[in-house]
Amino acid sequence: MVELPDKSTRLIDWYLEVLDAAQLTDKRYGVKGMNVWTPYGFQARRQLDAVMIRAIEATGSAPVEFPALIPQTEFQKEKDHIKGFDAQVYWVTRGGATELDIPLVLRPTSETAMYPVFALWVRSHRDLPLNVYQIVNTFRYETKTTRPFLRVREIHFFEEHTCQVDEATATARVESNLAAFGEMARAFVLPFLAIRRPEWDKFPGAFYSVALDIPVGGARTLQIGSIHHYRENFSGPYGIRYEAADGSQKLVHQTTFGLSERLLGAVVAVHGDQKGVVFPPALAPYQVVIVPIPGKPGAPDPAPAALALADALRARGLRVEVDRSDERPGAKYYRHELRGVPLRLEIGAREAAAGTATAVDRLGTKRLLGPNDLPGAVEAALADFGAALRAAAEARFAAAFSEARSLTELRGSTSVRVLRWCGREACGHEVETAIDGALLGTAEGPLPFKVEGEGGCIACGASEGTRWALAAQPL
Amino acid sequence: MVELPDKSTRLIDWYLEVLDAAQLTDKRYGVKGMNVWTPYGFQARRQLDAVMIRAIEATGSAPVEFPALIPQTEFQKEKDHIKGFDAQVYWVTRGGATELDIPLVLRPTSETAMYPVFALWVRSHRDLPLNVYQIVNTFRYETKTTRPFLRVREIHFFEEHTCQVDEATATARVESNLAAFGEMARAFVLPFLAIRRPEWDKFPGAFYSVALDIPVGGARTLQIGSIHHYRENFSGPYGIRYEAADGSQKLVHQTTFGLSERLLGAVVAVHGDQKGVVFPPALAPYQVVIVPIPGKPGAPDPAPAALALADALRARGLRVEVDRSDERPGAKYYRHELRGVPLRLEIGAREAAAGTATAVDRLGTKRLLGPNDLPGAVEAALADFGAALRAAAEARFAAAFSEARSLTELRGSTSVRVLRWCGREACGHEVETAIDGALLGTAEGPLPFKVEGEGGCIACGASEGTRWALAAQPL
Repeated sequence: MVELPDKSTRLIDWYLEVLDAAQLTDKRYGVKGMNVWTPYGFQARRQLDAVMIRAIEATGSAPVEFPALIPQTEFQKEKDHIKGFDAQVYWVTRGGATELDIPLVLRPTSETAMYPVFALWVRSHRDLPLNVYQIVNTFRYETKTTRPFLRVREIHFFEEHTCQVDEATATARVESNLAAFGEMARAFVLPFLAIRRPEWDKFPGAFYSVALDIPVGGARTLQIGSIHHYRENFSGPYGIRYEAADGSQKLVHQTTFGLSERLLGAVVAVHGDQKGVVFPPALAPYQVVIVPIPGKPGAPDPAPAALALADALRARGLRVEVDRSDERPGAKYYRHELRGVPLRLEIGAREAAAGTATAVDRLGTKRLLGPNDLPGAVEAALADFGAALRAAAEARFAAAFSEARSLTELRGSTSVRVLRWCGREACGHEVETAIDGALLGTAEGPLPFKVEGEGGCIACGASEGTRWALAAQPL
Repeated sequence: MVELPDKSTRLIDWYLEVLDAAQLTDKRYGVKGMNVWTPYGFQARRQLDAVMIRAIEATGSAPVEFPALIPQTEFQKEKDHIKGFDAQVYWVTRGGATELDIPLVLRPTSETAMYPVFALWVRSHRDLPLNVYQIVNTFRYETKTTRPFLRVREIHFFEEHTCQVDEATATARVESNLAAFGEMARAFVLPFLAIRRPEWDKFPGAFYSVALDIPVGGARTLQIGSIHHYRENFSGPYGIRYEAADGSQKLVHQTTFGLSERLLGAVVAVHGDQKGVVFPPALAPYQVVIVPIPGKPGAPDPAPAALALADALRARGLRVEVDRSDERPGAKYYRHELRGVPLRLEIGAREAAAGTATAVDRLGTKRLLGPNDLPGAVEAALADFGAALRAAAEARFAAAFSEARSLTELRGSTSVRVLRWCGREACGHEVETAIDGALLGTAEGPLPFKVEGEGGCIACGASEGTRWALAAQPL
């Protein structure tokens, strides 16, 4: 048995140990920041992908896949973009024994792979909107400390790229992406904030960036995704033009939407406890584990009842395991709790005879299910667990923020801070120094709690043009 | 409209044009041999992956994913393997502006990524068998002519890697893989031969290799997969040892099983015709297209009936599109045939009123379906199409081979040849010269047609130890 570090005081230590103990990843691969997706971790990722695919395809986005290698010549067409990524790309310089004429970049993100081809695909306004996405691995030569799922050098990446007729339509796509992320976040049970990043922190090449942030304890936040409006910043250099209905040639306006395996790290960090991982039902590799508990020698075997129940639950679309290993029940309970299985069903000889099961969910709620419509009762127990997990996450989310009215108040913050900001960069940096972190930006959606009316900038006191902004210590 | 080259006389030209016309891939990416997966091609690939995943997981194999980059030091541990791949690997030598201390290989296959970690995972006989697989992209600096799906530099790759207690168990895993491939090939409607490759053509580092080959017209064949027995060839250099039940330390015996996007190219090449692609139902991005045919102005609109039928079919698990674009029906028929859609349903005002649909399958069979249980009738028509496609493919397969009794007979072969071979390399090379191709190896399973008893080696006449072998011109 593993004693996990205290999550409330040693979040990162707890996080690293729980990943090992639950076998969600193997960090012992021979390249720093590149980890092995174990069977259990891969199956969680498969559910993560399924949620993303369902939500984005419902908005009319089509799957594609572009090559992983990008010619240097294409990579360097957009100046801010290349400046932003130059220090962290991997270069392929040799094939076999041959030095390549044109070195290839291992994609850190796919703008420069896709946009030369978009210029071929988009001809007329009838080709628009072009909404496509891919789920691929991207590569960044990360120089900061790496941590599984949160900051890695080979990233399991979701990226949507779209072309729109004009700026307003692109802005509407940003809104549509935000709504799609709302769907996904519901499945992950991750209450989040949409925050427009300040100019100095936007994506390299973007017109503006909206980040998706979650609080992860104290003043800390974690960015779990982002949506960008590119205006014509890329379509210009890459020549993505269309013939409008009036016959004129116009540049498209573009947007992108990026997510990654970091979402899996976020789920672990947000829901986990001292017993281990806690998976929301939509992400759990298996949602229900059934443990048959053999009685004394000669007692009826509960295994057939366990297997029959598993079949009935699978027929309803649930992911179910039956644990018939020869460990003692206590050791099984411990392991499945550590791995975050939402619901455990114990079936002994008595339950088997009565057509019932003792259910214990990952939050500890215990009850006897059946005999009437046992599979339906299991589904209901799983739904109740999901609702309880959501209520707990929303309560923690609501308590994670507090307002700050002066720079002094920001020092030593133990929650994420909401404050008034005039929008000037100098004032933003004063906030960052005071909280020893970052001005995340201005809230795009509703604030996490009720704030009182207007007020002056927390730094300079100016009352004109101030907006609500958030400051935190990003992980 | 595109006039496709004659498939029977210009297979490769036909193949390249049909991929473009059906929009299964885009070859205009800026790196030779690296192509774009278009939405339509990607959706075919998704079905391909689904078939592979279902068949391999049914044999108890678990999904994993190992990093794409392999340190040079690990890559070079097995001598034959490195010799086989040295000329065709991409090298990552730089991260940002930093020269890497240890260059990284972009995986051409994952033995050298996985096996150092397998050495950590396998400790005891209780950890065996270890059966895992991954579906990832692999990279080969191909110097031959590249062709989409068939020979590319970034390959969508399926690779199973297993560790077994001993040689016999590993041999049994090879058999199990063969059976799993049989399942997959049934879904792809690809009759195939399992052929043990001669020594000089086995996988670099293997004890022996079984290839999966299909005839593709004339004397030509295409290798669509392979299964390898490694014995202890890799477990030795990588130190993958376990403690046996008797307490002794033993090396594992290993196997691998490789498939790729080439299967998609094979499906196109085997089933396609002068109208375009023909997808087996299991692989079709959409299996049924419903075309509502509006009548004269004032006639009832058939669209509601089309949409209702689509919903009913989707509820049965079918993939269905309704084509309501404003093209004329003939243009729609042409396009969906080009794209290989198995079944088209035409619904005009009369069909809508009667609750029927006119069905035309991709082989040209036409019939009126309904009104009784219209969705059931559609399912039956799709199954009939699948059966007809299989019958046609099996008939062509049976006719693709002929026996050769002398080297002279091999010259100018217009079918794949079956012959007796003594097993000596010199005789094998004489066969290869005569047919201007390759000795594929000896049949592992039943031969494709009845052959008469024994006989001498086709090259040296020796009668001892001869076996049935196949010779062809591999694509």
